[in-house]
Amino acid sequence: MPLITLMTDFGLKDGNVAVMKGIINNISPSTQITDITHLVQPQNIKEAALILSRAAPFFPKNTIHVIVVDPGVGTVRRAIAAKIGMQYYICPDNGVLTLVINEAIQANLRIKYFHLDNPRYWLPSISHVFHGRDIFAPVAAHLSKGVNIKKLGTALNTIEQIDFPHPKKHGKVWKGEIIYIDAFGNIVTNISSNHLQSPKKCKVKLCKIVIKNWVKTFGDELPGELVALYSSIDYLIISKVNGNAAKKLNAKIGDPVEVEYS
Amino acid sequence: MPLITLMTDFGLKDGNVAVMKGIINNISPSTQITDITHLVQPQNIKEAALILSRAAPFFPKNTIHVIVVDPGVGTVRRAIAAKIGMQYYICPDNGVLTLVINEAIQANLRIKYFHLDNPRYWLPSISHVFHGRDIFAPVAAHLSKGVNIKKLGTALNTIEQIDFPHPKKHGKVWKGEIIYIDAFGNIVTNISSNHLQSPKKCKVKLCKIVIKNWVKTFGDELPGELVALYSSIDYLIISKVNGNAAKKLNAKIGDPVEVEYS
Amino acid sequence: MPLITLMTDFGLKDGNVAVMKGIINNISPSTQITDITHLVQPQNIKEAALILSRAAPFFPKNTIHVIVVDPGVGTVRRAIAAKIGMQYYICPDNGVLTLVINEAIQANLRIKYFHLDNPRYWLPSISHVFHGRDIFAPVAAHLSKGVNIKKLGTALNTIEQIDFPHPKKHGKVWKGEIIYIDAFGNIVTNISSNHLQSPKKCKVKLCKIVIKNWVKTFGDELPGELVALYSSIDYLIISKVNGNAAKKLNAKIGDPVEVEYS
Repeated sequence: MPLITLMTDFGLKDGNVAVMKGIINNISPSTQITDITHLVQPQNIKEAALILSRAAPFFPKNTIHVIVVDPGVGTVRRAIAAKIGMQYYICPDNGVLTLVINEAIQANLRIKYFHLDNPRYWLPSISHVFHGRDIFAPVAAHLSKGVNIKKLGTALNTIEQIDFPHPKKHGKVWKGEIIYIDAFGNIVTNISSNHLQSPKKCKVKLCKIVIKNWVKTFGDELPGELVALYSSIDYLIISKVNGNAAKKLNAKIGDPVEVEYS
Repeated sequence: MPLITLMTDFGLKDGNVAVMKGIINNISPSTQITDITHLVQPQNIKEAALILSRAAPFFPKNTIHVIVVDPGVGTVRRAIAAKIGMQYYICPDNGVLTLVINEAIQANLRIKYFHLDNPRYWLPSISHVFHGRDIFAPVAAHLSKGVNIKKLGTALNTIEQIDFPHPKKHGKVWKGEIIYIDAFGNIVTNISSNHLQSPKKCKVKLCKIVIKNWVKTFGDELPGELVALYSSIDYLIISKVNGNAAKKLNAKIGDPVEVEYS
Repeated sequence: MPLITLMTDFGLKDGNVAVMKGIINNISPSTQITDITHLVQPQNIKEAALILSRAAPFFPKNTIHVIVVDPGVGTVRRAIAAKIGMQYYICPDNGVLTLVINEAIQANLRIKYFHLDNPRYWLPSISHVFHGRDIFAPVAAHLSKGVNIKKLGTALNTIEQIDFPHPKKHGKVWKGEIIYIDAFGNIVTNISSNHLQSPKKCKVKLCKIVIKNWVKTFGDELPGELVALYSSIDYLIISKVNGNAAKKLNAKIGDPVEVEYS
């Protein structure tokens, strides 16, 4: 039976995640549910898109990802389902799937979209403010039980997408930016190993400092050193060994990052 | 096999929630366990009662809710089990079930209480300080495995209840108060759609400001606006669109809220 | 099918815990996964060792504990598996098992170690920075599915251990220290009921104050009082009833604690 994952900006205190799980278990008692995160910054669709695109590929085929970062709940924004490659996505139509779709296109995967307009798979009564409970959770539970995605609603040709910053090359310099800061304070950029041929010859400029210290992993330098390295999915990150680089550099998402061949 | 839910004020770091899960899995390996929350403010029984009463109704029948917010652990306070409608509750006898019971009475559900005084379903050795581990988790596991609730201990006629503030009507004004602030900074009041007939004609006063802007959902106004609306369970909430109303208004639980017909 | 537990310093936001769960479910769809904690202070192996040694004993036999607090990821530090008594442990070889091993030795349990050097049970491609994903999660999943621990790699005679402070007796005084502060602000010391014969006759000195108030449980004194008592695993803890002792005393891990017979 397909696994359901949940990602929201609900936080872990209020019990709203549990409400969604209760509803799923009510409809489909033996479906396993895994949390991706519930600590997305409130209303931050870009952040959700980023975390989703990193985590989803590691889940089994047929996994159903439910993403509820939904500032437009109860407005005209649509509720949608997507089949992207061998996985399913249930979410508001607000661009949160942009990165997953981009990667699917590069990998030549099949993509189908549906408007969740069939109330048969919703709760009987729909609030204006909590579609995670009223629509997304019950739809996911029915999908997990074997309902065909085509029954969930009308097929769509396109859905909303959002713009993500792409690094640009100016002569010998790649200009990108900070896109995420993780729990360790590692600074994640949008410059990847696809952009840089010989990283060891590059210097990295960000937050008014220059880093020339490229390493393979954190422990290659002494605690406290600032280093540049590739993340587990091959993006350039800046770390402070056994410390918090983002705090040390007062780094913020959107700050510019330059990589210059010397 | 009935699901077990866990709600505590243990936080997510120390491993005490995991200890309870380990014990449940030891006694009943195939029982599924779902977290409601472990971020109840330490010793805040009222907060736990509120979160519980919101989340419990969405779980399947026969679900066993274990609530351990237990400042009286190891003192004379009793450990209890309750069957309320079609769900079970395992907790210290400190009033945490008050709101669930109030709603069950209104819905004419059957209610039975038991004193957990049968040590057969406890761990062999009982500490003075961690009955979540020693009593509540093992009792829930046995109940999940099919032990009849009557075997867990002596039937009780009444259990502890706590006072919750109810809004009062003074002429054209409903006087209530702030009862919760959620992860988004939404300010939750104890005034509900049952109290207010024509909300659009009302103005809401709290924290030295007046709000006349009633909406159906957050996205009905521009980001930054303060709005009044009904929550997903029909209580009056005050929100800042895409922002944190509680921070903006410096709102605190217990602060007065007035709704006045104009 | 054996349960897998996860303990990391990854935090709950970034989705890295979910990545490990996705991989486990991919390899072994019906394995249940329980979180011990993901809020270990970054790189704090001692803290992880302490939380692990408290929680592990309450899990069923054959449970597989995966611990990824791994500042040395990608360096020469080994990845290891251990069978300690009737449970399994998968982790970097950095001393995180020290306390579990100490207790196993005292209880005369059998202990076996293995170097995880058989790539057959890893992901096909191994990064330098995320062995939780590439090695530890897939190895645990295979172990859960029934692969014999001997197949995971070469047997080892010894693994890394770290020093933990032990309390010392000087005349009528036990000198120990603060080893942990829990979510409630309880101050946990390394002095246990094994050291103190008649605690009620002792006074406890820490953070420039003296506590003579020994109790059995928190609720034995009025809210706000500072008390000394034994924790659920019989270590001396200092608490503020219904409050946060660590904040009140500005207590820090490593601060000295003395218990003096009067």
